[in-house]
Amino acid sequence: MLKIAIVGYGNLGKGTECAIANSPDMELYGVFTRRAPESLKTLTDCPVYSMDSIMDHKGKIDALIICGGSATDLPVQTPMLARHFNVVDSFDTHAKIPEHFAKVNEAATAGEKCAIISVGWDPGMFSLNRMYAEAILPNGKDYTFWGKGVSQGHSDAIRRVAGVADARQYTIPVESALEAVRSGSCPELTTREKHLRECFVVAEEGADLARIENEIKTMPNYFADYDTTVHFITKEELMRDHAGIPHGGFVIRTGKTGLKGENSHVIEYSLKLDSNPEFTSAVLVAYARAAARLNGKGDNGAKTVLDIAPALLSPCTGEDLRKRLV
Amino acid sequence: MLKIAIVGYGNLGKGTECAIANSPDMELYGVFTRRAPESLKTLTDCPVYSMDSIMDHKGKIDALIICGGSATDLPVQTPMLARHFNVVDSFDTHAKIPEHFAKVNEAATAGEKCAIISVGWDPGMFSLNRMYAEAILPNGKDYTFWGKGVSQGHSDAIRRVAGVADARQYTIPVESALEAVRSGSCPELTTREKHLRECFVVAEEGADLARIENEIKTMPNYFADYDTTVHFITKEELMRDHAGIPHGGFVIRTGKTGLKGENSHVIEYSLKLDSNPEFTSAVLVAYARAAARLNGKGDNGAKTVLDIAPALLSPCTGEDLRKRLV
Repeated sequence: MLKIAIVGYGNLGKGTECAIANSPDMELYGVFTRRAPESLKTLTDCPVYSMDSIMDHKGKIDALIICGGSATDLPVQTPMLARHFNVVDSFDTHAKIPEHFAKVNEAATAGEKCAIISVGWDPGMFSLNRMYAEAILPNGKDYTFWGKGVSQGHSDAIRRVAGVADARQYTIPVESALEAVRSGSCPELTTREKHLRECFVVAEEGADLARIENEIKTMPNYFADYDTTVHFITKEELMRDHAGIPHGGFVIRTGKTGLKGENSHVIEYSLKLDSNPEFTSAVLVAYARAAARLNGKGDNGAKTVLDIAPALLSPCTGEDLRKRLV
Repeated sequence: MLKIAIVGYGNLGKGTECAIANSPDMELYGVFTRRAPESLKTLTDCPVYSMDSIMDHKGKIDALIICGGSATDLPVQTPMLARHFNVVDSFDTHAKIPEHFAKVNEAATAGEKCAIISVGWDPGMFSLNRMYAEAILPNGKDYTFWGKGVSQGHSDAIRRVAGVADARQYTIPVESALEAVRSGSCPELTTREKHLRECFVVAEEGADLARIENEIKTMPNYFADYDTTVHFITKEELMRDHAGIPHGGFVIRTGKTGLKGENSHVIEYSLKLDSNPEFTSAVLVAYARAAARLNGKGDNGAKTVLDIAPALLSPCTGEDLRKRLV
């Protein structure tokens, strides 16, 4: 049994706890938290330890799954922990992945541990699909669409507008853009042509709705470059109809083969997820298995999903996988 | 530059020739054929050698792509050649993959070469997607659908019916079955419920069309278990409308996460291919790159796509891939 521990107990940590419970070859060693351990009630009543004590557990854990945020937690935690433990994180600030990789690689190499960064669905499964598709169809172009799903960052941005009590924002791919991509025409698409933004907003009593709507729609970076719709709803409607955290998206590559590019092909990968954090956790847990195994064979340093042989993710033997799935 | 050679020069060999021409890090060493070399005119005027002379080229080729058929060629050629060369094949008789793997593994291990078998799209990319999806969503079920596409085996079976001059058979997934699977209801589907078979038949002059149609529709294994439609067309129509070799299909897994399976997820991978052999060749060429690289690092024995880290398929550096695609 692989002993897996969780660092951080938000939505991602809870999802990871569930995914470990569904893994026959793993046991949950415990949760590490910066909160007072006795204040934390976990879903499975697993052991809870203070983050300050984590070094006391060195050598007893096969892999840590670090469930912090990419803005401030992971840039510090992953390099620190990768020196002492095999780790997996879901670092998702795409532009900073090379920098994060370099820091984690230095630490993991020095500590002779295996660290797999940027695991989840994007980055993660979508990265894999962009890579496989490009390697097979070098003469082509790939497109990534997100949604329909809840963007936490955009929901938070709306909540910061004066007069807004609560909000939920959905990112929605434009159907006609998806169809244009699938046709193989390799369209050049602007930000506005690829995604719509739909906002459900609970206003404070007496707030100026027209001003709120205008502030949202013209907000730079978040909404100004998109076709955005704003619906004002009650707190009850928000709780009833928008409580979930669904997400998903599409990676599509079209490309040509033949001596003169005479044949076209479409590779499409899509996800439709009821729970963004639970799916991300499920991917993290599979890669924690790979990290523990790779390190067990003497491999170390930082890796991404691109570096991991698929069979390492499964608890099944190579023989079984070849028989059932190849 | 990697030196890649092709064994066998049918549709797959020609597709491989094109895919190598599209690979900036590869050069085509030549084609090996059982035919008289001087009788073969290749698309790129590359060197052509007799299959009998292949051992004279040992040590000069980074990987061989074996483009023979699974029925009689590959079970003999791949084990024979894997003892002396890094090889890639597209062995696609699913039930015999474990046996083929064992034979190739023995030869490749003895010869300290790397052999990747069953490369293409199914087996191949579809195998990968079945495996990734199962590892992420262990609590779920996967479905594979093929088509719309031309089945060579079924087209050949129709041609063997008395009175048939030529024929083309399309395998078509049933749209309502795809929708039922995507809904997450995990339906149990019979053979008939998953795929339709559509046949375009050129009859010989004066042939009994009703008898031909009946013989096709009741043919055991090939058609009897399916809803089959038969269209009689002219030779000209067959040449004009059915000359291509398109194919494709879908791998869909639905699964649940959460402590009580409260959230559902759908992972879908699909291919829409203008040319089945050219796409298969494109996959073979990417895995030939991996075979050569793995062996260069001292790895040997038989592998499948499940054993190959994705980054090995790309001519780009890890640094570049992380920056652009993760």
